[in-house]
Amino acid sequence: MAGPDFPRAEFESRLATIQTRMHGANLDALFFTSEAEMRYFTGFRTLFWQSPTRPWFLVVPRSGMPVAVIPEIGAELMRSAFVGEVRSWASPHPDDDGLSLLADALRPHARIGMMMGRETGLRMPLADFETLRTGLCGCEFTDATAIVQRQRMVKSEAEIALIGEICSIASKSFEAAPQLFREGQTLSDAFRAFKIELLKNGAEDVPYLVGGAGQGGYGDVISPPGENWLEAGDVLMLDTGATLRGYYCDFDRNFAIGHASADARLAHDTLWRATEAALAVARPGATCRDLFEAMAAIVGDNGGDVGRYGHGIGMQLTEPPSLAGFDETVVQPGMVITLEPGVRIGPDKIMVHEENIVIRDAEPQLLTRRAPRDVPVI
Amino acid sequence: MAGPDFPRAEFESRLATIQTRMHGANLDALFFTSEAEMRYFTGFRTLFWQSPTRPWFLVVPRSGMPVAVIPEIGAELMRSAFVGEVRSWASPHPDDDGLSLLADALRPHARIGMMMGRETGLRMPLADFETLRTGLCGCEFTDATAIVQRQRMVKSEAEIALIGEICSIASKSFEAAPQLFREGQTLSDAFRAFKIELLKNGAEDVPYLVGGAGQGGYGDVISPPGENWLEAGDVLMLDTGATLRGYYCDFDRNFAIGHASADARLAHDTLWRATEAALAVARPGATCRDLFEAMAAIVGDNGGDVGRYGHGIGMQLTEPPSLAGFDETVVQPGMVITLEPGVRIGPDKIMVHEENIVIRDAEPQLLTRRAPRDVPVI
Repeated sequence: MAGPDFPRAEFESRLATIQTRMHGANLDALFFTSEAEMRYFTGFRTLFWQSPTRPWFLVVPRSGMPVAVIPEIGAELMRSAFVGEVRSWASPHPDDDGLSLLADALRPHARIGMMMGRETGLRMPLADFETLRTGLCGCEFTDATAIVQRQRMVKSEAEIALIGEICSIASKSFEAAPQLFREGQTLSDAFRAFKIELLKNGAEDVPYLVGGAGQGGYGDVISPPGENWLEAGDVLMLDTGATLRGYYCDFDRNFAIGHASADARLAHDTLWRATEAALAVARPGATCRDLFEAMAAIVGDNGGDVGRYGHGIGMQLTEPPSLAGFDETVVQPGMVITLEPGVRIGPDKIMVHEENIVIRDAEPQLLTRRAPRDVPVI
Repeated sequence: MAGPDFPRAEFESRLATIQTRMHGANLDALFFTSEAEMRYFTGFRTLFWQSPTRPWFLVVPRSGMPVAVIPEIGAELMRSAFVGEVRSWASPHPDDDGLSLLADALRPHARIGMMMGRETGLRMPLADFETLRTGLCGCEFTDATAIVQRQRMVKSEAEIALIGEICSIASKSFEAAPQLFREGQTLSDAFRAFKIELLKNGAEDVPYLVGGAGQGGYGDVISPPGENWLEAGDVLMLDTGATLRGYYCDFDRNFAIGHASADARLAHDTLWRATEAALAVARPGATCRDLFEAMAAIVGDNGGDVGRYGHGIGMQLTEPPSLAGFDETVVQPGMVITLEPGVRIGPDKIMVHEENIVIRDAEPQLLTRRAPRDVPVI
């Protein structure tokens, strides 16, 4: 079993902060079903969440320690985490998969906050939640998304160090591109080579690796790699969310195979300058909209239609806030965000470009090694 | 962009089958928010689900083609999938993240089935679902978990071929154990070496790799690896869910480092015999309970308390059914399941052992290369 990812003081601080916010929001408890929140408040980290079979529950009271209500298979690991109590059952269970244990844990609390808002889901059977909501525990459930997201947006120095380390590992891996990628290679072989390079350089896992390649640009940025060969004149882009102790980097790099077209070079330069513009305004007090508009001013009307030019990162590949025209979140020291402008090159070709930064008191700190202004040719 | 994972006839067959079941269940449409179901019915496959920010919706009507209601960033890829229509919006959106588009797509249908039961979740904001449920579309939402799970449990030959291929890749990777694992190596280095071996042998991804090591057995089977060194007398276990085109294998292997204790050898032999017992009864017409009881009869009272001795696999690491005393599901040709007995060796030590099989007309087909009866010593 691995040791804890953070010292106990980290979890004490997280708990104290959220309990103050719960007091302000008049909440008696928070109830979580999701991996990120459960890990954030307890340190409980396992890949077992990949199995959708079993539900996992956490109750964080307004005072006192968190209570975990979880399948027996995770009880030993959870007992080493930051919880006051572990209640468990043999799961899966045909007709009471933790629900009565959960109701017992919630019943002492009248007003219970849950993640119900944007960028959240419910990781338990909806029918079970309906049973709970309509009377099993007699509690009122209300939306607490805002207070939890607001807290998680601002990272501790320990969290920033982990994100910085995985960004360094991925930066180093991208620097090996001339040895990894070549004309005639299939895109899926290029992806495989890069994934292995990330692992060799110390990444714990590579849950996310997408990208594309095409003459002078690529069509979309969320596809799995195909068996098409890299050709001279292609722009190859890889976008990776690699992890260390469950914390993500999320950035991409573009490479021209053999030679770069004038359009591809111009697009890369535009994105590089858009990123510089965002770096110039990323100061405490600026809003996410300010950062978005700084990039949009450079990219102009040719921006990609992906809805935003960056977002928070941490325990999830994408977290609030959004660098978008609608997001008035004021950036604060400790926020870790991506700068991710995109540009349309032709009717069905785009280019994207991404860096990861942390907001500091004065100028922001780059966690990724800055991409060169000219698209590298390999 | 990769080509489709299956020929169009595969999706036509899936659609026809579910539409027949919808008719029988008096459902006008099915509404999905989850990756596995959306991929099952459309072939839409992307790692972008790793980003929790955006919701994705699929509506499968009782007659006609599926309608995807998805963020613009996925529209191009979705247009290449098995859907009749793609409706998209620029997501994330501050106050209407696809909800009004979704309501329009659902409104023509009166009675709508959703995944609400065991082993499911709701991958959209709960508050948005409440808005929908309490009137936005005027539909009735009801639980359709059973008909969807029953269909997905039985795999097509094309699905079985993919699962078989990833099982072969993982079997081959486990056979390299003597070259990969050694005394003095940290557990996290052993995991990394195995993950790289899987990728080199053709795995597309390794979303799940857990395990443990300890003198004569290990403590739990869901922890991330620690920095502890492998020592002579340790039993090392790795349990992997590697993927090919988004289909999983899920099995483990045990290795004794240097030498094996008598208890460890006995435990391995017991688990091997328990698996043989399950293989002997895994015939069409047997129930999941029969398979469970065949294994439990060998393992006896020393079974691990994980709730079951196997489960379905496919597009998810774990799927219904469960090999458990409560599961009366009758096994059928085409079901792909794991046989996964566990045994308690001491107060805090267990051993697990896992194979993947497909139910056939007569005896089952092993997709994994059968573990040796004696625990291998390396």
